[in-house]
Amino acid sequence: MVDFIADYYNKIETYPVLGQVQPGYLRTRLPDTAPYCPEPFETILNDVKNDIIPGMTHWLSPNFFAFFPANVSSAAFLGEMLCTAFNSVGFNWLASPAATELEMVVMDWLANILKLPKSFMFSGTGGGVMQNTTSESILVTLIAARDRTVDVVGVENMRKLVVYGSDQTHSTYTKAAKLAGIHPRSIRAIPTTADTGFALSPVLLRRVIEADVAAGLVPLYLCATVGTTSTTAVDALERLTDLAKDYGVWVHVDAAYGGSACICPEFRHHLDGVERVDSLSLSPHKWLLSYFLDCCCLWVKNPGLLVKALSTNPEYLRNKPSDSDLVVDYKDWQGFIKSDPRFEIVVPRRFSLVCFRLNPFSWSGLGYTELLNRKLLEWVNSTGRAYMTRTIVGGVYMLRFAVGATLTEERHVIAAWKLINEGADTLLKGSFYAV
Amino acid sequence: MVDFIADYYNKIETYPVLGQVQPGYLRTRLPDTAPYCPEPFETILNDVKNDIIPGMTHWLSPNFFAFFPANVSSAAFLGEMLCTAFNSVGFNWLASPAATELEMVVMDWLANILKLPKSFMFSGTGGGVMQNTTSESILVTLIAARDRTVDVVGVENMRKLVVYGSDQTHSTYTKAAKLAGIHPRSIRAIPTTADTGFALSPVLLRRVIEADVAAGLVPLYLCATVGTTSTTAVDALERLTDLAKDYGVWVHVDAAYGGSACICPEFRHHLDGVERVDSLSLSPHKWLLSYFLDCCCLWVKNPGLLVKALSTNPEYLRNKPSDSDLVVDYKDWQGFIKSDPRFEIVVPRRFSLVCFRLNPFSWSGLGYTELLNRKLLEWVNSTGRAYMTRTIVGGVYMLRFAVGATLTEERHVIAAWKLINEGADTLLKGSFYAV
Repeated sequence: MVDFIADYYNKIETYPVLGQVQPGYLRTRLPDTAPYCPEPFETILNDVKNDIIPGMTHWLSPNFFAFFPANVSSAAFLGEMLCTAFNSVGFNWLASPAATELEMVVMDWLANILKLPKSFMFSGTGGGVMQNTTSESILVTLIAARDRTVDVVGVENMRKLVVYGSDQTHSTYTKAAKLAGIHPRSIRAIPTTADTGFALSPVLLRRVIEADVAAGLVPLYLCATVGTTSTTAVDALERLTDLAKDYGVWVHVDAAYGGSACICPEFRHHLDGVERVDSLSLSPHKWLLSYFLDCCCLWVKNPGLLVKALSTNPEYLRNKPSDSDLVVDYKDWQGFIKSDPRFEIVVPRRFSLVCFRLNPFSWSGLGYTELLNRKLLEWVNSTGRAYMTRTIVGGVYMLRFAVGATLTEERHVIAAWKLINEGADTLLKGSFYAV
Repeated sequence: MVDFIADYYNKIETYPVLGQVQPGYLRTRLPDTAPYCPEPFETILNDVKNDIIPGMTHWLSPNFFAFFPANVSSAAFLGEMLCTAFNSVGFNWLASPAATELEMVVMDWLANILKLPKSFMFSGTGGGVMQNTTSESILVTLIAARDRTVDVVGVENMRKLVVYGSDQTHSTYTKAAKLAGIHPRSIRAIPTTADTGFALSPVLLRRVIEADVAAGLVPLYLCATVGTTSTTAVDALERLTDLAKDYGVWVHVDAAYGGSACICPEFRHHLDGVERVDSLSLSPHKWLLSYFLDCCCLWVKNPGLLVKALSTNPEYLRNKPSDSDLVVDYKDWQGFIKSDPRFEIVVPRRFSLVCFRLNPFSWSGLGYTELLNRKLLEWVNSTGRAYMTRTIVGGVYMLRFAVGATLTEERHVIAAWKLINEGADTLLKGSFYAV
């Protein structure tokens, strides 16, 4: 595969940049159903060569001058390989501490290079996060702004919320606003002209906002752009944020394209005024030599507002099993549990997950049994020799043992079962009663 | 890197499964600012070994029995490498025809293997798409359902919309509902018990829906689960969809975990009733040996509703430059255009994009000039030797020449300029007037 990719990059200039195929071309070349038998690697690479490459638009071609070209590097490729190999999911800190911590460190590094104020850094009072795309960055900040404002004006006034941009703001803004429940009629695209270099005019913006306020509407969010898609126009952040402050409007800066350039001292002035905005996003795949995948950097001044808007409602969760669960399942493993009267299977096994608990004493109440199983889980996980989670369903605290990792063999399940027994023995041998 | 990854997989069993570090450990080990000078590859790999791996939770460890374990394979790894290398963005068909077409073919293949009805296939009347996550699949279908219903009941009744699930539905559902503007009070989590194996009770659901309707609320969306996270419970699709139909509720099936198993005949009955649901998603990274990245398959019966809800509003777009633009920019290139009186730079260059047009005749109106430039763009792009896009700003149609691909050298820009000239010569030499 490494050789194939190297060849592709070597030959990329010889391919037509724009795919020269007709709609539907691929369906006629591939079978109607997935192949039942595996095929040799060479056959698959030949299919890629003959059927896929001719239908591609070659974003990395040196003759690609469309949209904004892509920037990549060998270093980025190696990084992608490593990330893929680790297959980490950092949905919370414990799910992979290094993933969260590295993201935090690197987002601060990049903020530093851009000379962002401390209010956007973890080492200050803010913080950064990688989003998949600019659309996502706009969506999550818009929702944080929406919920902040709805808390004040009441949900019954949600349809009075108005968002602002110019007629040069990326169309993804309209999409994000629609997703957030802003009516298309409440999305203001202020016209621009050559006089301002197609930048958003603060004078016009003030007039539009004033008219909206006079009409009883609620100004919510402004998306300013550093480097518009059409012509790389730059909106004047300083004047726009002055104005936005007067109306309590959340200001987001979409610097997807222009942001990276601001690392250079001669371009940094395009970010003047950034200390007064609420959030800023840029796409390293535009100029910072990284691949496209999931690579939009978003900094926010008040991460608490994002968390408040995006975390699932704690009140609601109180009536719901915690999602950071732990359960158990495996055909033979189910046999193990059944053979040990100290344990019980709480929910019949259906797929490859077993939900069980340690419940050795007929006299013990739910609270005692839960405490015992919490201790057991903590004991097992702290050894680093196996990792399980837990859940509470129907009021019963239980352990989740989920089998299915590619490398898991029967011996790993057996060893885990022994470990769980060792834990149960230790806990039941007295010291636990003191807890 | 290949060797490093192979070593990691070989040694993975020797690492503690759960990261054994304290919050903040990495910040103390890494410098406060990004390294100014490059470092040798070996140094970086040593950092990964010493600072990153000890802080990881090893999702691919055979001793990982938490959440749901990850499934990967060498084939998937090679596929990830190839996708990364191509760096394609398929935001529309032309942006990379093979990307869109392959996704369509493979989604039909997988629908076929799952014995989904034709109403979910491109070869039938529906279609499938890869989303990043289950959250995204729920979000986009919920928004499609929301907009469909709001069209009927009016935007002023949006806060009357109610969505349904069980207390076992994944917490991402609450998040998606909040993003879509559904008030947390309007998210119904029907309690489950051991009697139904913690599946959603159709009897209870009907009671809750009837009470909501009686209170003047509007039932909108039901998320049924095939394989809940806590205990792999399966909601009874047949009875739930019967009920949902009575109230015009959109039914989505979250089969993230259980869906893959339904490929096996002995599990397929868990999808009985799927022919009556509106949408279904499953995560191949749970059991189908693929890596985590951006891998949730979503099928919908009425793709038109998704497109309607998610595409940017055409009316609004009419007052906005089309986003599938074309522009131009490069320092030397700007010199080229200035040297040829037939061309003009329309917007001053700011970053690495030049916006220009062919405008040879002082007497020609905007309409004629636009037609001329449309023809020129078509001529250039159809050669396959270069790819540019276009935009309309301030009413002026112009070409976008964006420089910046990693492999682009000065010679490519010069060749593209010659090509543009060749096109202009051809068009102006007479045949164009006949168009």
